[in-house]
Amino acid sequence: MSEFVDRRNLDFVLFEMLDLDTLLTTPRYEEHDRESVTAMLDVVEGIAGTNFLPFAAKLDANEPKFVDGKVEIIPEVGEALSALGEAGLFAAGFDEAVGGLQLPWVVTTNINGIFTAANLSVANYAFLTVGAANMLSAFGTDEQKEAYLPNMLAGKWFGTMCLSEPQAGSSLADIKTKAVRKEDGTFSLSGSKMWISGGDHELSDNIIHMVLARIEGAPVGTRGISLFIVPRYRLNEAGERGEWNNIALAGLNHKMGQRGTTNCLLNFGESGETVGYLLGEENKGLACMFHMMNEARVGVGQASVMSALAGYLHAVGYARERPQGRPAGVKDQSTPQVPIIEHTDVRRMLMAQKAAVEGGLSLTSYCSLLVDKQKTAESAEDRAEYDELLGLLTPVAKSWPSEHCLEANKWAIQILGGYGYTRDYPVERHYRDNRLNHIHEGTFGIQGRDLLGRKLRAGVSALAPLRKQIASTIETARAHGLNAECDQMEKALASAEKAIEAVRGCDEENLSLANATLFLDAFGTVVVAWLWLWQASVAKQASPEAGSSEETFYKGKIAAAQYFFRYELSKVFNTFELVASLDDTCELASADFFGVS
Amino acid sequence: MSEFVDRRNLDFVLFEMLDLDTLLTTPRYEEHDRESVTAMLDVVEGIAGTNFLPFAAKLDANEPKFVDGKVEIIPEVGEALSALGEAGLFAAGFDEAVGGLQLPWVVTTNINGIFTAANLSVANYAFLTVGAANMLSAFGTDEQKEAYLPNMLAGKWFGTMCLSEPQAGSSLADIKTKAVRKEDGTFSLSGSKMWISGGDHELSDNIIHMVLARIEGAPVGTRGISLFIVPRYRLNEAGERGEWNNIALAGLNHKMGQRGTTNCLLNFGESGETVGYLLGEENKGLACMFHMMNEARVGVGQASVMSALAGYLHAVGYARERPQGRPAGVKDQSTPQVPIIEHTDVRRMLMAQKAAVEGGLSLTSYCSLLVDKQKTAESAEDRAEYDELLGLLTPVAKSWPSEHCLEANKWAIQILGGYGYTRDYPVERHYRDNRLNHIHEGTFGIQGRDLLGRKLRAGVSALAPLRKQIASTIETARAHGLNAECDQMEKALASAEKAIEAVRGCDEENLSLANATLFLDAFGTVVVAWLWLWQASVAKQASPEAGSSEETFYKGKIAAAQYFFRYELSKVFNTFELVASLDDTCELASADFFGVS
Repeated sequence: MSEFVDRRNLDFVLFEMLDLDTLLTTPRYEEHDRESVTAMLDVVEGIAGTNFLPFAAKLDANEPKFVDGKVEIIPEVGEALSALGEAGLFAAGFDEAVGGLQLPWVVTTNINGIFTAANLSVANYAFLTVGAANMLSAFGTDEQKEAYLPNMLAGKWFGTMCLSEPQAGSSLADIKTKAVRKEDGTFSLSGSKMWISGGDHELSDNIIHMVLARIEGAPVGTRGISLFIVPRYRLNEAGERGEWNNIALAGLNHKMGQRGTTNCLLNFGESGETVGYLLGEENKGLACMFHMMNEARVGVGQASVMSALAGYLHAVGYARERPQGRPAGVKDQSTPQVPIIEHTDVRRMLMAQKAAVEGGLSLTSYCSLLVDKQKTAESAEDRAEYDELLGLLTPVAKSWPSEHCLEANKWAIQILGGYGYTRDYPVERHYRDNRLNHIHEGTFGIQGRDLLGRKLRAGVSALAPLRKQIASTIETARAHGLNAECDQMEKALASAEKAIEAVRGCDEENLSLANATLFLDAFGTVVVAWLWLWQASVAKQASPEAGSSEETFYKGKIAAAQYFFRYELSKVFNTFELVASLDDTCELASADFFGVS
Repeated sequence: MSEFVDRRNLDFVLFEMLDLDTLLTTPRYEEHDRESVTAMLDVVEGIAGTNFLPFAAKLDANEPKFVDGKVEIIPEVGEALSALGEAGLFAAGFDEAVGGLQLPWVVTTNINGIFTAANLSVANYAFLTVGAANMLSAFGTDEQKEAYLPNMLAGKWFGTMCLSEPQAGSSLADIKTKAVRKEDGTFSLSGSKMWISGGDHELSDNIIHMVLARIEGAPVGTRGISLFIVPRYRLNEAGERGEWNNIALAGLNHKMGQRGTTNCLLNFGESGETVGYLLGEENKGLACMFHMMNEARVGVGQASVMSALAGYLHAVGYARERPQGRPAGVKDQSTPQVPIIEHTDVRRMLMAQKAAVEGGLSLTSYCSLLVDKQKTAESAEDRAEYDELLGLLTPVAKSWPSEHCLEANKWAIQILGGYGYTRDYPVERHYRDNRLNHIHEGTFGIQGRDLLGRKLRAGVSALAPLRKQIASTIETARAHGLNAECDQMEKALASAEKAIEAVRGCDEENLSLANATLFLDAFGTVVVAWLWLWQASVAKQASPEAGSSEETFYKGKIAAAQYFFRYELSKVFNTFELVASLDDTCELASADFFGVS
């Protein structure tokens, strides 16, 4: 059994659920069809299995080191990324006009996901490069695009995002990195950037940093932030790597997981000039960054799903082979032990993982599809609707997997027992890797405020586009007899709306958002329940041969949907009631209540 | 602020809540009083702070190595354990008759807890030695006790528990280690033991293993298991360490956490004879083991609480000092940033940790007190009642912290953000350490079956001793005006009972116990809610000076109780309904539903 990819389920999500075939008939994607996408996924699976998976444990045990001012990484990392670049996969989602394959985003998200499941720490370098290239592509001048994009899309130059600083992680308003305008229109940058993934290494010929900084004299706070292209090496006359741009590696962070991705403290302009080039408009840096944020945040959710998938698949394989104990009814201890998958509690833990992983994958895939639908929308109205829906679902796609797929990793360890707790098996590594996803690209708390404070506090009307999609799913589901689930779905939505109205009716912003994080979690469960209802409907619609493995696959989908409604969706009512009650326990808690006074 | 101990809260639990003063008037403990116990805790805090805490991170980064057939550990470990031994603390809980201090178990649990919070990996060696010595003390012949106990209680010889084998972890019925009776009445042992914490090292002059094995010809299964004393080095004529007993270290396990505790695969009788001495009766080995299991399991719960406490205290300190962002109402970004404890969502995460940690500590301390109450009971009837109550609460004390205090560690990381994810801060280490507690000493699933299948399936009458305690707490709490909490408590208990009755009414054992693990989790929350109600009542009763830090302390207790009822206890109804519904989703799930077919 494959350890990192479930192609049958991926096909189900892409083709049976999200109807990728139809998207591939739109002019933008008409160069592709099911066959070519499938062939591409085969290639990706091959590279991931050959060049990424085999050294994932070795890389975790041998994290990058800071030696003589440079980063030392085991050579397999560079080789893997070269293979990825040679296959043209850095460019998978980019327009043909800039040399890309112009694949739908829902496909590239899943291509990236396959690499992530095989070896997250390595996939990160590509993910960051694609993100940086995306920003360049959206906001760069023709000259800027020409200068950087081709090498980035070829995987020769990598990219990073430089947002956080030691004193400003979640609070971007407080970044201090300074940009001084020079006579030639370029800028001289100085300051420190923290938590920069892929910030320094010798894996690529150059590193193109996307840096947030303040131009001298800019307004305070978020309105005074600009975005800069800051290459590790400046380009020479020929447009090739030139002299060093004085970005000093001040240190590497030593993380609990994702250890193969260098994570750096970088100092700009410390020992000489660091030149930066304004990307987009002055003081509009955050807007540029946030323009790409939806995709980056969905990408974090996808990484979380993939870490959980890898853990889940390993746990399933182990549970099928490991004999231990006997069924509850069997008292004769001389009978042979059975594989632990025979124990209901083990199947419960597998079901919890399946529900989180396949639910999560449908969520991140659906959100990625919305990006494609924006691009192929036939009217401005449709486009606005997709945009609104994506905005609403982005904090969910970012956060729900980072909570529930981390939990899935926890249960994968549990299935392996003592073995799962050792570094001889991959499940504990996936658990450590996944713990980051609640933190980066906006913490859980920040996503909660984004959803409830920024997007839903305006009123339940913000739910309209989602409501519409859910209504359509419910209609189909009822036709397939999934009435109990449909009823519960309606009730859950009504409960969420009640909570939103209560929040809206409260004048004290702090109090009204005191439980925004919990709201986000429960709301995410409602969204994933909808996606499970959709999956169950698709499964009901299928007509597989009796007794075939296909029949088992669809039955498994229906069972997982049932599990999700009975075991997960049932929890949200309590949370929504808590949010609606505007409980002030934490709001009123004194700082002196905690710890040792 | 102390990083690993909250003495104010410990005093609250021991003296204000559990009324240790009264216990100390019983003949068994009358040598001690509040003053001497406090002085002892001061000594422990001093040793833990000086000899345990400082190298916890270093030990995690430098786990024991297997070098030339021996285990190499950084020297600080041996020095710390010597300090513990020199202070007489291995013997803290033992009877004066065998050279112990005869301290109440509730005190020794918390002494051990202080060392655990400071450096879990090191405290484990002492914990295991005390456990082994306890079994010797309970079941050994006078000769056996004389031979081993003095050196163990002096901390010169360490002890282990050897239960699991590579093919039999949770299923002890299937262990294969063989014991052949020799003419002199001793036994020759052969076989492999897996996951042996403290199984081999050079920290102590000898290691006394407590080994489960089958005597040749013994019945199959659990009824054919005997317990043996198997020293690493046999004793010579003078009773001192003699020749090696042929226990070969076959390998060390490399864990995700608790990395400073050696964890070994041991081979007995491979290259020569391994001599063992029967402890207790033939074929009654499991009964002996289980006699001590309550205490060991409560100890695991305590370790989990302590890992969470250490994480929580660190997070509180960080939250008080780290400036980031501004209150929700403040839009002017030129104002200074505030410490993050000012943010409601941060206080919510701290409250979640406080509720789990202080709730968990009251649980493990209460269970430890029950051991003391058994020993000091004035009638056989009372003793039986304490015994029943402890049996009922043991799976809860073992499991509830391992779930909810692990969650607390997760939120401690979250409060530190990116910093929390690095190994420069201790919070990620506590999280990794804590993940084991769901697995060893009986997994979460096994505890669930113990509680619901073995203890409660007999009927709600098994709840009677607990009901009685809760009723008494409710009476007091109502007198203090905690009526809403009391009503909710009654409702939660009724809901639990309904679930128990449904399980009892179901003839299919497998189906009836399909959700036993979830039941255990929810039942644990009910128990901890009761303990929080108790704590809130005590706090209401106190009459601190207005405006004093004592007043803040009690207010914090009442707020945490309120949090627990509103945010945690509110979740159990849904779970109990699920259990009562005898849901068969997981029971009926085919093994082929999972993973890649």
